[in-house]
Amino acid sequence: MTPLGGTLGRGIALGLDLGGSQIRAAAITSAGDRLGRRSAATPSGGGPEPIYATCAELLRGVRDDLPAASRGSLVAIGISSMGPVDPWRGVVVDPPNVPDLRDAALADEMEDRVGLPAYLDRDTNVAALAEHWLGAARDCGNFIYITVSTGLGGAIWLEDRLLLGPDGTAGEIGHVSLMPFGGPRCGCGGIGHLEAISSGSGLAAAAQDALADSARGAVAGALASGLLADRAASGRITGRDVAEGEMAGDAVCVGLMERARRAFAIACVGWVNAFNPERIVVGGTVAERQGARWLEPARVAVATTALRGPAAGVRIVPAELGADVGLVGAWPLVRDRHGAAVWRERRARP
Amino acid sequence: MTPLGGTLGRGIALGLDLGGSQIRAAAITSAGDRLGRRSAATPSGGGPEPIYATCAELLRGVRDDLPAASRGSLVAIGISSMGPVDPWRGVVVDPPNVPDLRDAALADEMEDRVGLPAYLDRDTNVAALAEHWLGAARDCGNFIYITVSTGLGGAIWLEDRLLLGPDGTAGEIGHVSLMPFGGPRCGCGGIGHLEAISSGSGLAAAAQDALADSARGAVAGALASGLLADRAASGRITGRDVAEGEMAGDAVCVGLMERARRAFAIACVGWVNAFNPERIVVGGTVAERQGARWLEPARVAVATTALRGPAAGVRIVPAELGADVGLVGAWPLVRDRHGAAVWRERRARP
Repeated sequence: MTPLGGTLGRGIALGLDLGGSQIRAAAITSAGDRLGRRSAATPSGGGPEPIYATCAELLRGVRDDLPAASRGSLVAIGISSMGPVDPWRGVVVDPPNVPDLRDAALADEMEDRVGLPAYLDRDTNVAALAEHWLGAARDCGNFIYITVSTGLGGAIWLEDRLLLGPDGTAGEIGHVSLMPFGGPRCGCGGIGHLEAISSGSGLAAAAQDALADSARGAVAGALASGLLADRAASGRITGRDVAEGEMAGDAVCVGLMERARRAFAIACVGWVNAFNPERIVVGGTVAERQGARWLEPARVAVATTALRGPAAGVRIVPAELGADVGLVGAWPLVRDRHGAAVWRERRARP
Repeated sequence: MTPLGGTLGRGIALGLDLGGSQIRAAAITSAGDRLGRRSAATPSGGGPEPIYATCAELLRGVRDDLPAASRGSLVAIGISSMGPVDPWRGVVVDPPNVPDLRDAALADEMEDRVGLPAYLDRDTNVAALAEHWLGAARDCGNFIYITVSTGLGGAIWLEDRLLLGPDGTAGEIGHVSLMPFGGPRCGCGGIGHLEAISSGSGLAAAAQDALADSARGAVAGALASGLLADRAASGRITGRDVAEGEMAGDAVCVGLMERARRAFAIACVGWVNAFNPERIVVGGTVAERQGARWLEPARVAVATTALRGPAAGVRIVPAELGADVGLVGAWPLVRDRHGAAVWRERRARP
């Protein structure tokens, strides 16, 4: 199935899901069961060491809780990390929300501290592996996985394999511009990237800007309502506030949510034209909360404006594995990489 | 090298390059030499039959001109056609400029009329095969090929192979939107596609619109100069007219050319982020005439705004094979497909 593939058989993988606010761990069986779940808050501000220590403690705890028979089936650790990462070397590169982990050799650290081989990839790639194994992309050789959450990221799976690229960063399809002329600035510095328009953080930043403009009397059209001002007064505005503002009829929120869905729909048309996928699998809290409201405009845009053949052959579907996707993906990550020559070479330590 | 690969050895391919205005043919040797070139105007308005007849006549002429020894080395025909095509079935689907060829089984027709197996793909895919074999993408396992000409099209080559997709349309990266909100309408019906902004036909259409607006007094800012009006009076405005208008200082042309280069640059940033290529190979008459003027803004945009790792690893380079690229590509097209099981199955006729 995958040209990079190794073998895992009926073995068990230890899964680690490293997020900006939480770290989770569990053992993942060949049936997709999650055993011995543990979690902890992501330590912040103390450099990499407290994070390494927490991750290793969670993994050892999961391992030690396993029945002795299962412990003997443990093969390796699969790590899902916020990006960008270098999957070839198992390194977290420079996650915007967790500066403590800049150039952090997380896979090597886990190997040393837990005593099992470790493989690491970007959360979206691990999610694509999971959705392909047990979720919305089962038996699908060509799909795009996209998560619309605080950030907006993706993975590209074509001709039966996950695309990595020489630096392992292929699939960062949230960082393509849809509004290069006058669009909002992205966290990465780009202008008008899809992430800046359609993600939770992008929606929040745009709402914050609208509020500031409104306070200065700079907006000729719709004024930000009291709703946004109230939310801002009680803390930072979130993407969820903007979505709730739309439901409450706030004109600024309505405009921002419509723009976010429209941009996502247009991006889907571009992916259908560029990649000719059979499915687009959409996960992430923003998309999941919106449901059909989020997916339907994309389906209509693809059906009516994408190239004829590819438009007829693609389905836009919700992801199926929810919050566990980063843990579940540890199993296929280990299956595809452990024992495979290309990974043995690339992960070789000097 | 390529998982789809067959073998051609020292064999010779017959190359056919089908364009909107011209059809060209030559025999392509394993050294890349082009023997016995022939060409003819593309017959128009008479349905597919005159086009089939002209193609077959050119191919038979090339074959008959070969020395007897070389004729014995002929293996198959490689066809480069304007898109969209279905390479799996060897069918031209619905080229906007040549309606005579809607759903035309060109590969089968050439097999029957010339007596050799025939393989067909979109011109940009054939060009990518050629540039990988003997041009700007030699020894490169990960690159994007892009042609900026009357149209704007591309091909995606990742992890040592050309991406086709289930319908064979993967790589249509000119049909991604950069200006979904208020951008120019594309020939395919989409809004703000890169092709509508940066191709020769897109530039011409925008200049025509500016001229019409100017005549109606609808433009508040820069007025279209006499230059565009003169060109329009002596026939249809072309992309070349807009480029020349920029050099003559015409404000509308300056604005359109700057927008075209800027959009292309932003698109390159997106491709670097999404695909992590080692090279972006840029061909086509518009880009070739502009030279560094076209490529340099893209290089700067990638270096300053693309993701760190991929930005450091990519080079944006001009294509090397010029107008012969569609003929030269016939050889690797036949090399990769003739005798390969996947192609034998897919091309099997009912």
